[in-house]
Amino acid sequence: MEKLFALLKEYEEEMISIRRFLHEYPEISYQEVKTPAYIADYHEKLGHDVRTGVGGRGVVATLRGGKPGKTVALRADFDALAIQEENDLPYKSKIDGAMHACGHDGHTATLLVLAKALNKIQEDIEGTIVFIHQFAEEIAPGGAISMIEDGCLDGVDAIFGTHLWSTFPLGTIQVKPGPIMAAADQFDILIQGQGGHGSEPHLTKDAVMVGSQFVASAQQIVSRRANPLHPAVVSVGHFEALNPFNVIADTAKLIGTVRTFDDDTRDLIEKELDNYLSSTCQLFGATYDFQYKRGYPAVVNHAEEAAFIANISKEIEEVTEVVECDPLMGGEDFAYYLQHVKGAFFFTGAQDPNWQMTYPHHHPRFNIDERSLLIAAKTLGTAALKFLEGATTATIADSLTK
Amino acid sequence: MEKLFALLKEYEEEMISIRRFLHEYPEISYQEVKTPAYIADYHEKLGHDVRTGVGGRGVVATLRGGKPGKTVALRADFDALAIQEENDLPYKSKIDGAMHACGHDGHTATLLVLAKALNKIQEDIEGTIVFIHQFAEEIAPGGAISMIEDGCLDGVDAIFGTHLWSTFPLGTIQVKPGPIMAAADQFDILIQGQGGHGSEPHLTKDAVMVGSQFVASAQQIVSRRANPLHPAVVSVGHFEALNPFNVIADTAKLIGTVRTFDDDTRDLIEKELDNYLSSTCQLFGATYDFQYKRGYPAVVNHAEEAAFIANISKEIEEVTEVVECDPLMGGEDFAYYLQHVKGAFFFTGAQDPNWQMTYPHHHPRFNIDERSLLIAAKTLGTAALKFLEGATTATIADSLTK
Amino acid sequence: MEKLFALLKEYEEEMISIRRFLHEYPEISYQEVKTPAYIADYHEKLGHDVRTGVGGRGVVATLRGGKPGKTVALRADFDALAIQEENDLPYKSKIDGAMHACGHDGHTATLLVLAKALNKIQEDIEGTIVFIHQFAEEIAPGGAISMIEDGCLDGVDAIFGTHLWSTFPLGTIQVKPGPIMAAADQFDILIQGQGGHGSEPHLTKDAVMVGSQFVASAQQIVSRRANPLHPAVVSVGHFEALNPFNVIADTAKLIGTVRTFDDDTRDLIEKELDNYLSSTCQLFGATYDFQYKRGYPAVVNHAEEAAFIANISKEIEEVTEVVECDPLMGGEDFAYYLQHVKGAFFFTGAQDPNWQMTYPHHHPRFNIDERSLLIAAKTLGTAALKFLEGATTATIADSLTK
Amino acid sequence: MEKLFALLKEYEEEMISIRRFLHEYPEISYQEVKTPAYIADYHEKLGHDVRTGVGGRGVVATLRGGKPGKTVALRADFDALAIQEENDLPYKSKIDGAMHACGHDGHTATLLVLAKALNKIQEDIEGTIVFIHQFAEEIAPGGAISMIEDGCLDGVDAIFGTHLWSTFPLGTIQVKPGPIMAAADQFDILIQGQGGHGSEPHLTKDAVMVGSQFVASAQQIVSRRANPLHPAVVSVGHFEALNPFNVIADTAKLIGTVRTFDDDTRDLIEKELDNYLSSTCQLFGATYDFQYKRGYPAVVNHAEEAAFIANISKEIEEVTEVVECDPLMGGEDFAYYLQHVKGAFFFTGAQDPNWQMTYPHHHPRFNIDERSLLIAAKTLGTAALKFLEGATTATIADSLTK
Repeated sequence: MEKLFALLKEYEEEMISIRRFLHEYPEISYQEVKTPAYIADYHEKLGHDVRTGVGGRGVVATLRGGKPGKTVALRADFDALAIQEENDLPYKSKIDGAMHACGHDGHTATLLVLAKALNKIQEDIEGTIVFIHQFAEEIAPGGAISMIEDGCLDGVDAIFGTHLWSTFPLGTIQVKPGPIMAAADQFDILIQGQGGHGSEPHLTKDAVMVGSQFVASAQQIVSRRANPLHPAVVSVGHFEALNPFNVIADTAKLIGTVRTFDDDTRDLIEKELDNYLSSTCQLFGATYDFQYKRGYPAVVNHAEEAAFIANISKEIEEVTEVVECDPLMGGEDFAYYLQHVKGAFFFTGAQDPNWQMTYPHHHPRFNIDERSLLIAAKTLGTAALKFLEGATTATIADSLTK
Repeated sequence: MEKLFALLKEYEEEMISIRRFLHEYPEISYQEVKTPAYIADYHEKLGHDVRTGVGGRGVVATLRGGKPGKTVALRADFDALAIQEENDLPYKSKIDGAMHACGHDGHTATLLVLAKALNKIQEDIEGTIVFIHQFAEEIAPGGAISMIEDGCLDGVDAIFGTHLWSTFPLGTIQVKPGPIMAAADQFDILIQGQGGHGSEPHLTKDAVMVGSQFVASAQQIVSRRANPLHPAVVSVGHFEALNPFNVIADTAKLIGTVRTFDDDTRDLIEKELDNYLSSTCQLFGATYDFQYKRGYPAVVNHAEEAAFIANISKEIEEVTEVVECDPLMGGEDFAYYLQHVKGAFFFTGAQDPNWQMTYPHHHPRFNIDERSLLIAAKTLGTAALKFLEGATTATIADSLTK
Repeated sequence: MEKLFALLKEYEEEMISIRRFLHEYPEISYQEVKTPAYIADYHEKLGHDVRTGVGGRGVVATLRGGKPGKTVALRADFDALAIQEENDLPYKSKIDGAMHACGHDGHTATLLVLAKALNKIQEDIEGTIVFIHQFAEEIAPGGAISMIEDGCLDGVDAIFGTHLWSTFPLGTIQVKPGPIMAAADQFDILIQGQGGHGSEPHLTKDAVMVGSQFVASAQQIVSRRANPLHPAVVSVGHFEALNPFNVIADTAKLIGTVRTFDDDTRDLIEKELDNYLSSTCQLFGATYDFQYKRGYPAVVNHAEEAAFIANISKEIEEVTEVVECDPLMGGEDFAYYLQHVKGAFFFTGAQDPNWQMTYPHHHPRFNIDERSLLIAAKTLGTAALKFLEGATTATIADSLTK
Repeated sequence: MEKLFALLKEYEEEMISIRRFLHEYPEISYQEVKTPAYIADYHEKLGHDVRTGVGGRGVVATLRGGKPGKTVALRADFDALAIQEENDLPYKSKIDGAMHACGHDGHTATLLVLAKALNKIQEDIEGTIVFIHQFAEEIAPGGAISMIEDGCLDGVDAIFGTHLWSTFPLGTIQVKPGPIMAAADQFDILIQGQGGHGSEPHLTKDAVMVGSQFVASAQQIVSRRANPLHPAVVSVGHFEALNPFNVIADTAKLIGTVRTFDDDTRDLIEKELDNYLSSTCQLFGATYDFQYKRGYPAVVNHAEEAAFIANISKEIEEVTEVVECDPLMGGEDFAYYLQHVKGAFFFTGAQDPNWQMTYPHHHPRFNIDERSLLIAAKTLGTAALKFLEGATTATIADSLTK
């Protein structure tokens, strides 16, 4: 472990320069070409087994240790966003309308350099380490699902991954057992009423009335129909009925999102939204079209592996605090890996303590404190090695299963 | 009267050709130049006293009868709309983006030719007839109010006016005592909440929620706060909050209309809309801007004069039916004249029985059956002469005042 | 007419003493025995044709005039209410739990004494006068419908009736063409949800939620589904779900009323209440029972006869004002007579100008100014005689039918 | 430990007979006289230090071990409910209108006999065991708070308690870190509107409308104002406005409950209920009275002690399963002890596997499987002894605090 930490420290500059290089040449989800080529090339030069085009555009590299053992996977995503960067940086994006505004450049640099360091201690490793470089995390259906179908988890015993997080302080590792990121779904509604003159409501089926009544009453789904112990959010952000002042709306378009952490609640909310729409339309004799688009499911950490991440993080010098965080309401297709193998996803704080203003993920001025890369690399590296060494941890979840 | 009817019949072709000429050269409200000049010229040639620029762009002509008596006013409006005509007619509008799509060309032609006919029987007339040619009826504040301020009703004992109506059958005269056209007001609302991420409602002041709750509950103003015997309508036709699916709205823009027939109800609804907005914003801690733009007040016919119109209409050969109509929900600035002098406003059916499809007022394919012009002229002419003769009628309203 | 007025003046004291006698011995709707016997006896002594037990407990007496002519009916109701009188009067009710708290004692006294006076001028009367003494006006289905079925209107050309009204000033006659009293219906709703513990809404079908949502949204029926020109009221006065604080309601009972003035609106509201209930129950998976109990339909005066009442009232010395009133929201089964023959119903002011406090109808301290009896008798008497004389009146409604 | 288990097994019959004796003589909260006397007597006979009248009616007994050490408290409540028992049992309640319908008889019997067994091994105990026999758990403010003020926790290092639970299977121990029982509050609302006739809504301030609108919209507090990750429930079970069908309500009375698991959410909901009431009343010009009665706060287990209970339970022969339960929505004043010292509260399954029908707590036919007493005694006894031995456990919560 000490050897690994020393190597990572030594390679820190390379890690940062790779991250900056990737930052200058971002590639949007499903359009990644040069990034996976760069990654494959890096691993090939290290002598790793490399598969490209995994599930589409993914890269999977394998490092076989000097001793027999289990197999652990580490995952980093590498796609960028269709955002015009507004930062004034030496390594600002050179691609118009594309930006690494979510830190995936950092994830990739971390994993590549960690692979290089692990490669140097290959003889000591008891088992196999799989480096999963995933494309298209930002846009559903996402790369994870097709990479899994294409075998990226074959033979893997556990998986770990991290997200650099610009609003968590540098030095913190944040993790929790169970749900850590939400299922994030979208719904699109078109209410078809019957328009008319503003002075003659009785001759119309007022789509604005239907939509408003629906928005107001649909909140009861969260508070009365769903289990109060299972968190859920229904938000309608888009209400569109753009008529002149004296016209009653023929149609209204509503768009919104649903966040849940378990499948029962997710299913129930989809069903009840349809029911509430149907009932509310019936009031006015209107009809509707309802599209429910499932995003990624909730990221549900395995309890033992979450505790394991918490335990090993404490041993890392640069980690100043390990936090049992609240779940985040955003989505991540890391969820799919955890449906197949044991593992945990955690957040590596990347907020520079000197910043006066922190921009959130997906903001045109998003950035990370690059010192977080070393921390992420050490944590992932430790996780991989300790897992292969067979470390376990006594957890409450463990205790509770007799 | 027989003399008048004969003259009008004789001049019917002129009436139609004037209407078609005006139809070819429409002038939009507040931009009327050639139309009032044409009108003034016509009256001057008849030897009437003519005042131009009344209240802005109005024309008032006076015909003094051969015998002393009262003064009666007849009103026709002459402005056009900013609509591109889609009719295929020999006399289609020659002005791009302007159209007589509400029949004011017919009103003006009717009144001019009626003036010519009355002029011919000037010796027999017991009193004075004032021809009020009004500009800018279509757009508030409208021409009536400034023409009244500029004296167009000075010395006038009663006023009558009609609207050719494309959806009432040719041959019908439609009138009622009391409210015959509504006060038509507009309101504009901006709800200022506090936006945020769709997954974090508790950190926001959701403007779509506020707007929806307001739209749904504001209907209670009509059904619970206003006197159920006093008709009222509140309609929101425009709801605008155009955010991505995962964003909670910072603002919502609502636009709608209010229709009432009496001032108390109108005042109450304006006040209660503000109250409902204020209360609903308080639920979420949002703020709002509320603009209530009063259109014309209700056109309220004087009961005796409405009955008078009904009675005299029965005597006109071409009138096949006199109908006590329901009030119309549209607005008209004839309302202001009736606040100053006695009188009545009525509808002259102008729907060609052979049309397969009738287009409503303000439609690019609006048209009238031109035979309605003669009917309107006869009715207005009879009203003027009989009023000056001192005709009264036994009405219930009359009966009710001991 | 002068002869009649003189006789009525002469009999005024008798009229008042009959009213007081009836006041002392009130009989509740459907339980009238002595009152109809008293009435029949009075008419028999005058030599009128008398039918008893008409439609159950009604009395119909006929006075044939000395000359041939039409037939006119006058109607007075004679039932009392299940109210304990709280007035301190020499002629206070002697029957426990029963009171003439709506003035029907006055109606009966008026009609009896008017019959006596008309009997004295029998030779001069050109036609026939039918005195309809109706039982059970207060409680639906009411006596009118069965008396009509039993022939009380056979051969009748027109009918008139009045209601003494304690909150209209003495000296006023109040009438209007068209609807003058509302259709007053009742609805009873039982929402059947599924109860449970207050902390587990997701396991219940919350009947209080369903009921509340229904009450709030059902107001949209009045303001959005019904024609805004047709008055309507929906009120829920009774909401009953009496559970402990930590119990979610299994059932909720709602009771309310609907007021309308035309059959289309009445039918629509009944249908839409059912629709709103059904839709709202669907939100929560609840079921419901909905009972809609129709009271009397609206009393709709015939326009000509309403104007006629207004005209003749002006000729009566004691009438100081004839008012075109707003319609009243209460119900009356006089409605049924007007569905069969022409006629009008009007209010005779009975508020003593010296009272400091006027109690409304059905109040335990209700009373009338007895001077109103003479006015009612004169108005009804004049109406009967003038109608038989063939008097007509020019009315707007008349004017409007060519 | 083996010695303790053997003794408890030996005393099992006594435990059951004490429970049955207490069951026959239940005493309602704040009226306990004989029960605390019986408890005090039992401990005195064992030679324990006994304090009576603690905080009112509580009994605190102290067993000092043969060796020095920490102090651990075990708590059992002993009050009964004002319920008429409907069970047909040999040991049915002999007190009219009172019943041990929540298992506190079992809690007390368990603790007394456990005290006797521990007393037998006094020499081996390293520290002090405090037996807290609490009165009045059922009715707020509850006995815990005054017993704490009266010193029952002085010198105590940790506390443990259990609840026999009739709907959890015999053999299960159910526990979780963090919130395990809710804060259960009550609110009472009186809406003061202005009544009137059902046909004249505009002259009233309709309390049923206000109440309904409030019930429907207050659900938004849970779903939009509170943090979606923090469970909350607002339920209105009581809606009372009992007017005749044609009366608009003057007042409406609402009663309901709020359940939360953290103070921020609890405070927010109390504040927002007031805000929603205020805003909704403003719609109609009504006023209100709002009483928010706080019940017990949430029972929040300390994470380490909860894991400790889970761990030690696994060692007990009769425990077939240790379950990490969902929090229960009911309240318990054990909450207060955990605000002062470390500890945990857990459920001991008491559902007889042979029962065809299980009655919930507070039901007139509630009962427990008496074999649960031995399990509860063993678990509490083990907890006390192991705690004094200094046992700790590695938990995730522990891991997370660096």
